[in-house]
Amino acid sequence: MKTKKSSVSGDELYQLIKRLFPICRSITGNGVRESLAIMQEYVPLQINEVASGTNVFDWTVPKEWNIRDAYIKKINGEKLIDFNESNLHVLNYSVPVNGKYSMKDLATHLFSIPDQPEWIPYRTSYYEEKWGFCLTHSLLQSMQDEEYDVCIDSTLEPGSLTYGEYYLPGQTEEECLFTCHICHPSLCNDNLSGISVALFLAKILSERKNRLSYRFLFIPGTIGAITWLSLNENKWSNIKAGLVASLLGDPASFTYKKTRDGNELIDKTVIHFLKCSGSAYRVIDFFPYGYDERQFNSPGIKLPVGSLTRSQYGQYPEYHTSADNLDLVKPEKLEESLLAFLSIADILDNNITYINQYPKGEPQLGKHGLYQKIGGIDEKDKELRRMAMLWCLNLSDGNNSLLEIADRASIPFDMIKQVAAILEETGLLKALTR
Amino acid sequence: MKTKKSSVSGDELYQLIKRLFPICRSITGNGVRESLAIMQEYVPLQINEVASGTNVFDWTVPKEWNIRDAYIKKINGEKLIDFNESNLHVLNYSVPVNGKYSMKDLATHLFSIPDQPEWIPYRTSYYEEKWGFCLTHSLLQSMQDEEYDVCIDSTLEPGSLTYGEYYLPGQTEEECLFTCHICHPSLCNDNLSGISVALFLAKILSERKNRLSYRFLFIPGTIGAITWLSLNENKWSNIKAGLVASLLGDPASFTYKKTRDGNELIDKTVIHFLKCSGSAYRVIDFFPYGYDERQFNSPGIKLPVGSLTRSQYGQYPEYHTSADNLDLVKPEKLEESLLAFLSIADILDNNITYINQYPKGEPQLGKHGLYQKIGGIDEKDKELRRMAMLWCLNLSDGNNSLLEIADRASIPFDMIKQVAAILEETGLLKALTR
Amino acid sequence: MKTKKSSVSGDELYQLIKRLFPICRSITGNGVRESLAIMQEYVPLQINEVASGTNVFDWTVPKEWNIRDAYIKKINGEKLIDFNESNLHVLNYSVPVNGKYSMKDLATHLFSIPDQPEWIPYRTSYYEEKWGFCLTHSLLQSMQDEEYDVCIDSTLEPGSLTYGEYYLPGQTEEECLFTCHICHPSLCNDNLSGISVALFLAKILSERKNRLSYRFLFIPGTIGAITWLSLNENKWSNIKAGLVASLLGDPASFTYKKTRDGNELIDKTVIHFLKCSGSAYRVIDFFPYGYDERQFNSPGIKLPVGSLTRSQYGQYPEYHTSADNLDLVKPEKLEESLLAFLSIADILDNNITYINQYPKGEPQLGKHGLYQKIGGIDEKDKELRRMAMLWCLNLSDGNNSLLEIADRASIPFDMIKQVAAILEETGLLKALTR
Repeated sequence: MKTKKSSVSGDELYQLIKRLFPICRSITGNGVRESLAIMQEYVPLQINEVASGTNVFDWTVPKEWNIRDAYIKKINGEKLIDFNESNLHVLNYSVPVNGKYSMKDLATHLFSIPDQPEWIPYRTSYYEEKWGFCLTHSLLQSMQDEEYDVCIDSTLEPGSLTYGEYYLPGQTEEECLFTCHICHPSLCNDNLSGISVALFLAKILSERKNRLSYRFLFIPGTIGAITWLSLNENKWSNIKAGLVASLLGDPASFTYKKTRDGNELIDKTVIHFLKCSGSAYRVIDFFPYGYDERQFNSPGIKLPVGSLTRSQYGQYPEYHTSADNLDLVKPEKLEESLLAFLSIADILDNNITYINQYPKGEPQLGKHGLYQKIGGIDEKDKELRRMAMLWCLNLSDGNNSLLEIADRASIPFDMIKQVAAILEETGLLKALTR
Repeated sequence: MKTKKSSVSGDELYQLIKRLFPICRSITGNGVRESLAIMQEYVPLQINEVASGTNVFDWTVPKEWNIRDAYIKKINGEKLIDFNESNLHVLNYSVPVNGKYSMKDLATHLFSIPDQPEWIPYRTSYYEEKWGFCLTHSLLQSMQDEEYDVCIDSTLEPGSLTYGEYYLPGQTEEECLFTCHICHPSLCNDNLSGISVALFLAKILSERKNRLSYRFLFIPGTIGAITWLSLNENKWSNIKAGLVASLLGDPASFTYKKTRDGNELIDKTVIHFLKCSGSAYRVIDFFPYGYDERQFNSPGIKLPVGSLTRSQYGQYPEYHTSADNLDLVKPEKLEESLLAFLSIADILDNNITYINQYPKGEPQLGKHGLYQKIGGIDEKDKELRRMAMLWCLNLSDGNNSLLEIADRASIPFDMIKQVAAILEETGLLKALTR
Repeated sequence: MKTKKSSVSGDELYQLIKRLFPICRSITGNGVRESLAIMQEYVPLQINEVASGTNVFDWTVPKEWNIRDAYIKKINGEKLIDFNESNLHVLNYSVPVNGKYSMKDLATHLFSIPDQPEWIPYRTSYYEEKWGFCLTHSLLQSMQDEEYDVCIDSTLEPGSLTYGEYYLPGQTEEECLFTCHICHPSLCNDNLSGISVALFLAKILSERKNRLSYRFLFIPGTIGAITWLSLNENKWSNIKAGLVASLLGDPASFTYKKTRDGNELIDKTVIHFLKCSGSAYRVIDFFPYGYDERQFNSPGIKLPVGSLTRSQYGQYPEYHTSADNLDLVKPEKLEESLLAFLSIADILDNNITYINQYPKGEPQLGKHGLYQKIGGIDEKDKELRRMAMLWCLNLSDGNNSLLEIADRASIPFDMIKQVAAILEETGLLKALTR
């Protein structure tokens, strides 16, 4: 990975994660509102509330869930499980419960991971009314009493689904969408890393003049995407490229999951970026599982949305456990991820198609002073910049955008963009579309 | 290869071969009639006779050949070569001969395989009037006498070309063609294995309700295909897929030879089947040589007919020799071949294109009771069936048939078909075409 | 490489190079005229003169450069550098100079190759008025005197740019272009090898009856191509295929650089030839640098011109040095290169599309006497010729030219061509286009 720098440090990205980590988020409820309020300190997010019971395509916005406390106590009063120690302890969306339970009756409500006896699993039950506790397998095995005091002080009542949206208008209405889920409680790589990267990306882009418009969604997974898509059908056609942001703080190299079509602008953009990054990476084909790319790529929507992560969805051991914590994500990895998203936005924003104004033969470059203007740090760099110039001239026949030129030339987009700008200044190229 | 079972055992397939083995077949004559009569015990084949002299495209149906006996005797009466011991001993289509021949004159009429001194070669001379004997090279080398008594009691006279046809109408006139040659005398893998597999396939399909119509041809090689094609031009347009059946009893893994176009429905079907079979296989490009796929894929006919064999045409040592006998073909391999043909027919018959009725986002699967309906034997199977369901929903936009979905999902067609049927019952999918 | 022979020996090719080697060529001037006059002894080239100052696209034909003598002397009169010993000693297009120079002032006018201390570099300054000397690095290091006598007796004055053209009309106006640069002084592989191969190719083709028309250009690099293209826009549309000839005498195997489109007739032709050659070769993608393919493939011209060389442009150590001399190029390599160009011309000239007149099934080949006519040296050759025949019949549906048939069949074009000619004679094929 090139040692390009953004104006935001990995530490800033990490600090935001640290603030959001303790909050008990879910697909609805005050945990989401509290998280979005913190995020508004960085970027003026618009907060939307959609009432429980609202029909959104085949779904219905569920009742709102809130939780205050939960525990399992021995009869002697000793707390074995305490929600205040980890919000993962409660099966997310648990209905309230309060009373004495025999271990036999309690057992079907307890979830652990036998293979990882010290980790607490993360489990949910959004659409089936249930209650339960998640705990380490070693604790589960130590529970030998006949009876326990059980309490979940939660409510599941009509309310609303809350999400954040940030729209940044550019010169054109064509927009690029970045979306991340905000519904996981204390999980760092899964959800918080994506939130942090997307939020700082929004902040940086808001300080620039952009050609494209940008839209950022901070939404609960699945139901949030379906809700937004259902309420915003009129916005679909503007979305020219999109990316789901998640799993962006762990040490793995990047994984790009393609759109359903596999050959969209976002596919070419991310793959070009990864190819030029000099680091290892994986590109995987679309499959209808994972994060919200599932919804955006459904057959009646078909929006060109890929997904950029480090580890793959569901493929790292800490996934959906208490080990996906502040130790798993690293400031330098977060920063690298933000830079990747910035580079991708930069390619999309600058992917202009030019027309060579001297298309018959090569123009006489010396005459136009181009050898000087193109410059170069050293002989090798100079040569590469000259090749970039020749590629821009040769392929600017209206059929190739700068990204296609960069890709065919195997020259990083950034250099192609700089050289094209010089050629435009000099009058040799003229933008066909902006 | 999965351990799926058909209703027919390898032994039944083998027993039919055993019955047909001793008969001296050729491209015309009573050996063909006798063989077809036996085959009619299994399936009500229609027997067609086409008179010698009939013009069929660039060809003419030849005179009919029949043979009663043939031998070479020493002058002392000792029989060296006896047609009754192996009908391969006679050059197929030999004109009659009777008399004493010097070894010198006889030599040009004798054919052996120096490299395989104990095998009798199989040779023919359909279109040049000749006579000859095929014998082991060791026998040939022992023939030291100056003169021999030679007799071929055959006739070559106006008559007809005989072939069998079986048409099984389905819900639609679109048809799938299976064809095999029936013109080889005592050769097992080459011709009898294909006959047996095709015949039992016909029998099994006749006991089912099929969407497609099926046509089975049992025809002499080359001239039979040309004759059928010439007399049935009005049937060409219904043929949507076809397969030549031969070399289906030897121990080699499957070889699929593609159609001329290489990307037809039959190509995708067979290749999907082979990919999911879990066994080794070869896919080879079309070339204008081999079995009757040559005729079906000729430039003025262009029917999408591939060829599925085990060993490749002309590429196994026993090919066209007396070693292609009852020892070379194995009941379990025949059964496996029949299962392959059945699976292929099953894919073709069930390759429906559905339309997702809830195309915007994913439908709420739990609400439709789908997690229960989709079921699964164990956790891994359950997960695969859920993925099959998501793939069916995601790709059912009218552009993908179930085969295309199975192929893209890398999930066996059978599971995709089952899951799609459940989604159709539940109202989530609706068939676009049947 | 097959041991096919042309009517021209490698020695003849080499002798021409030897005659042209001592002449000091440049992009204009008498060296070019002298060279073209020698070339006219072989082929009746048309010599064209284009006046200095003529506007050609974005360029202007430069002043004409001529040189009579040049040297650097010690003050004691001892000649250190003498133009008469090697014309590479002078920076090509040097303006005149005469006088005493301090070593300090002289130094910026001296060019050497530190890594190759015994080689003289080849340097030019066409579009910036400069003077300079090229010399071995060891000589440069020995120059310890404070002052030297310096003289370049050259002129840079209005005149003209000279180039040679040879047009060979065929049955059709569709033409194939061969072009080579003639602007390098004493360099053998770079420029002279291409000139020699192209000239003898022209000679051989002029002694044949051709279907295509052929055009040969002997032009200064870059400015010559731009000049010809600018003055001959009306000829562009006839050019169906083209090849730049250079670097054809060194021992490396062939390198083909594709056209910008990469899938033109010339690409398929050269790649088929190389595949069937039995020798190693490289095929590289187009890039907008190198020889005059740059101009022909510019976005406003887009002529399908590839480049066939042995070593790659700029990629062999002797490139643009005094080591690119008569020792580097070999008669047998030149001959092999000429044969390659001849074979390529042969494919282009005979790339006919036929229509099978018996397209339904295979014709009865024996009836048409084809087994005899097709012939074959031995059994293996016979079999290959029969396969060639079947491929020609199978693919001659109007969509495949002989080159496409040869390519799909993996049979050398030459055999396909011969067999197709027999099938045409016999009436089985009929030419669709010639």
